Formats: sequence, structure tokens, C-alpha cells
Amino acid sequence: MTATTYDVLGIGNAIVDVLAKTEDGFLAEQGMSKGAMALIDESRAAAIYQAMGPATEISGGSAANTIAGVADFGARAAFVGKVRDDQLGNVFSHDIRAIKVAFDTRPASVGAATARCYILVTPDGERTMNTYLGAAQDLSPADIDPAQIAASSIVYLEGYLWDPKNAKESFLKASKIAHENKRTVALTLSDAFCVGRYRDEFLDLIKTKTVDLVFANEAELLSLYQTNDFNAALTQLRGDASLAVVTRSEKGCVVLSGDKATPVPASPVKQVVDTTGAGDLFAAGFLFGLVRGFNHEDCGRLGALAAAEVIQHIGARPQTSLKALAQASGLSV
Amino acid sequence: MTATTYDVLGIGNAIVDVLAKTEDGFLAEQGMSKGAMALIDESRAAAIYQAMGPATEISGGSAANTIAGVADFGARAAFVGKVRDDQLGNVFSHDIRAIKVAFDTRPASVGAATARCYILVTPDGERTMNTYLGAAQDLSPADIDPAQIAASSIVYLEGYLWDPKNAKESFLKASKIAHENKRTVALTLSDAFCVGRYRDEFLDLIKTKTVDLVFANEAELLSLYQTNDFNAALTQLRGDASLAVVTRSEKGCVVLSGDKATPVPASPVKQVVDTTGAGDLFAAGFLFGLVRGFNHEDCGRLGALAAAEVIQHIGARPQTSLKALAQASGLSV
Repeated sequence: MTATTYDVLGIGNAIVDVLAKTEDGFLAEQGMSKGAMALIDESRAAAIYQAMGPATEISGGSAANTIAGVADFGARAAFVGKVRDDQLGNVFSHDIRAIKVAFDTRPASVGAATARCYILVTPDGERTMNTYLGAAQDLSPADIDPAQIAASSIVYLEGYLWDPKNAKESFLKASKIAHENKRTVALTLSDAFCVGRYRDEFLDLIKTKTVDLVFANEAELLSLYQTNDFNAALTQLRGDASLAVVTRSEKGCVVLSGDKATPVPASPVKQVVDTTGAGDLFAAGFLFGLVRGFNHEDCGRLGALAAAEVIQHIGARPQTSLKALAQASGLSV
Repeated sequence: MTATTYDVLGIGNAIVDVLAKTEDGFLAEQGMSKGAMALIDESRAAAIYQAMGPATEISGGSAANTIAGVADFGARAAFVGKVRDDQLGNVFSHDIRAIKVAFDTRPASVGAATARCYILVTPDGERTMNTYLGAAQDLSPADIDPAQIAASSIVYLEGYLWDPKNAKESFLKASKIAHENKRTVALTLSDAFCVGRYRDEFLDLIKTKTVDLVFANEAELLSLYQTNDFNAALTQLRGDASLAVVTRSEKGCVVLSGDKATPVPASPVKQVVDTTGAGDLFAAGFLFGLVRGFNHEDCGRLGALAAAEVIQHIGARPQTSLKALAQASGLSV
């Protein structure tokens, strides 16, 4: 293997989050499924925006949040995703580069606007998402630079990338190049509804080892195997995936590797303000642990640490130094 | 007097804030004057944005923040200010309308982009501002609707409005119409550097009673009368203005009316997170008190209440119901 330039390279939808507080009643009125991510078209996006309260704009995107976390831990990170050359595209590009993430994907100069995700945060801290994919739809295999993939220790893909039509091929191209160069490919299942849309394809990616590492939360795991039996689903995933991590909110996570299932507790949290980014930041900590050579339990602890940080404030990217938090927790790196 | 449609109508620069945490060293490197607002051109805006960290976009603008506060207290509010018809202009328009503020100023379809203010928040919660006025420059007397001004009990103007060339005439036109209709005109001096730029003009506005109510903080007051003697400056302002309020951060405020100077204490604060909007929200509370017929001391208390709310979180607009806070404090309305 040749030397790497990046520890983790993420490929995902480049999205600006539009966050607003709301009440449960608003979700009901709008026919939204609480806690889920729904894809919306331009006219629905306009209608939701019209109806929702004052908001805060902040860079988001699932894999992009993970990559922001990886960079904050102090690792070398890169991101691939499509924005339009508009004001929100500039916001996304500025924010990810400002945290020292390499972001070289050429912005689209025509077509749909930069993707937005309307995130409605209810008083319990839960977030309900409505995504207008916009320019993120236009990520294509031409945006995947073989040399950059080959130079990345881990390539991390979000399940949401299965939604934009062309992105799927980009995803597969990246996985192929990564494996040709003996790199690791990781996938997050993203969302239970997303698993519902692409169950067979995701299972195929896992079983054929197109991905080496799978992140899933409980709902995604149960949806993947169409069961209500958590332990049965865990056993199936353990058989199908080389390495997998199932996150369980305040119950921590379980790392599945070969015949081992290692539980890791969650980190303590004073107050849950906004759960946006919890899964994304968990993945950041776990991936960072992997590239630094920690054992799976400590990788899980790093994931738990980052997830706990991000749910205690508004926004899906870290506001406290994850590097410092890791060091304070004895996971010095 | 005819009936009013609005309790308070604000005229100001329509700005989207771009907030980032930073260290004092960054301000020094960039030659920024801590705590002040500097006007910047497009190339300086690009250079600052390039150098600053990841940010959050949130609607701002001094008078617009005040008006947001007035609406949150439950009063009828309107805003006049110029955005461009771009993504950030849409963000500004959405956010102010989402809180039930009438905002009917036609956006510019050509020219500079919507105004932005790069706000750098240091660990002590102090904010240092760099404003690119952009489309806000283009507010003109044609944007002032005489019927709307005539129907507003108080017209509130920000001193910053003296910076865009055409806005000055809009300001004077609004004041004239308001007084012809026996309405009250209020002005905030905005910033000590702003007072430095327009001292004589501001003094003239006050002495000629073009404005009836003046808001100033200590630094602005001292700059206005070019003195270091707080009590001497207070005496001068008491002589020049019909009604004035001088805010003093944690020392509370002093309301000056005729021969009376009434001190009002600040509201308790657990932790100062970001002082952006403190003066704006103080004005909101005071103006709300006035339109509801409270005495000056209670107006000051309402101001202190709103200021305390806004400095305990990121962003310059209230996140907790000011109406509920006022009721909980016995200032039921």
C-alpha cells in the first residue's frame, strides 16, 4: 500500500441545514413522520419554508458532518459532494474548508440550487428532516478523483447517497477504487425510511463486501432485516458484515466483529438540546479511533463522546474541541 | 390621531449575520477593534470570510432584531429595510415574516447582494462586527410608505442607517411623516464608532427634536459629548433629549426624562454566551413597555429582561418567549 494523504474521505449530499424549533403539532399538521428524513421537491420545500418559524442556517449533510468531526479530532479529512455556485453553496464550501477539510468537488454552475434540509426540532430535542436535494442530485462519477480515493485510508459513504440517481454510480466507483488500493469502505444506513427504500441494495452492498464497515441505529437495523427482534437482527448483521456498529441512543452501541458483539455505553449528557448529527458524530469518533489504531471498544467510546457533544447544542457539527474531549477522557491521540 | 395598525415600525439595515466563534488573537491579526462595528467593502468581506472559522447564518440587523423582540412581546410590528432577491435575502425575509412582522419593502433585483455582518464572538461572549452593507445601501425614500408610517405608534430608527447614503433621506422622510401624525420617533445611536462618524448630525437630530427618544450605551454617550465624564454627559443628554435611555451592561440603565434620571437594574444572567443583540433587545423591551403604557422604570425592566434573554444564547433574536418572561416577572400585558 502506498502512503495516504487522508485518513477519512467522505462522500455525501452537500447540504445546508435550515433549523427551526417547532411543536409536535406542526409535524402532525404537515403530515411529517417524527424523527425521519423525507425527500421533498422544490414546491414542497417552498411550502414547508413558508409555514415554518424563523430559522438558523448552518452547514450540514450526514457524511459532511461526520467528516467535520473527524477533522475536529485532528485527523486528515476530505469531502466529496455537489453544491451549486450560489450563496448557500458558498456557505457550505466555506464552512467545511474552514475546518481544514479538503473539498475540491467543482460546484454546479447551472441547474438546481444548493441542497437544503429543513430540520424541525421539537421540545424533546428530536429532529424531523425534510430534504430538498437540489444540486446534490448532480454528483456524478466524474466527481470521483481516483487518485484522491486511492490516497484515503477509509472511504465513508452515506446511505442517503442512494437517493440522487447519479450518485449511486459515484458511490460504486469510489468503493471499487478504494478496494483496488486495499482501503476500507464504510457505509452508514442513514435512516430507517432510507433503508425501506433501498433494503435489497443495501443488503447486497453488505453481503458482497462492497462495504467493509456498516453503521446502523436500532431502527435502521430492524428495517434492514424486517424484524422487531433486535437480537435476531444483530445476529444476522454479524453474519453479513465484516464489521458493524449498531447505535442505540442512550443505551450506547454494540460493535459486531466476527463472532464478537462488544457493548459500549453512551457518554453522559446533561441536557439533550438537538439530536441532529448524533449518528454522524458517532461515526466520526469511531472512524477516528479506527485510523488511530484503537480497539473496537475505544472506537465506540470515541463515537459516544462525539455524539454526546453534538446533541447538547443546536447544529450537527462539533462546537467543543473533540480532540480535547478525547484527551480529557484518556483516549489521548 | 387616527387608529394605529402597528405599535412599532423599525427602519434599518436588513442584514444576515454570519456568526463564528474566534479567539482574541484573530481580532488582533485582522486589525479589528474588539466590540465595535466596522463597515467593510466586498473585497474585505471576502478576505475576512476566507480567514474566519465555520459559521452560522442567522437573520440580524439592529432595528430588525429590535422589531423581532417587539413582536415576540406580542405587539404589532413592522420593518422597512432593503435586501437583494437572493438566497440570503430570502432567509432574512422569511425569518422576519415568520414572527409575524409586516415586511413589505421590495427587494432589489439588481445590484449588490444582501447585506452580511461577520460577527466574531470571543470566549468572553463579546462580539466584534464587520458589516458589508450590500443591498441595504439601496434603501431610498421611495421605500417609505407614508400611510404605513402614519399608522405606526412609534417609528424606530438605527444610527447605522446613517451609513448608507440614500437611507438618511428615508430616515428624515419617515420622521417628518411620523411627527405630522403625532407619532413618536426613536433613535438608537448604535455604536460608539458610528457616533464618531456622525456626531454633529446625531446631536442635531436630538436637539431639533427630529427624534423624541434616544437609546445610547455608555460608550456611545461619551462619544456623543466627547467626554470621559459619564455624569456630565448624562446631564447634557438630559438637556438635549425629550426622553433618553442610557444602557450600562451589567449596571443596568438610566432613564432620562425632563429633570428626572431613573436608574433601573439589569436582569440576572446565568452565563453570557454572546452579547450580540443586547442593545437591540433592550430597546425592544423599552419600546414595548412604552406602547403598553408602562411607567419608565417598568419600561427599563422590560428592556433589561429582553437583553438578558438574548445574551444567554448564540444569535441576536429571542429564543424564549419574551411575552412569557414578561408575565413571569409580573409585567403582565
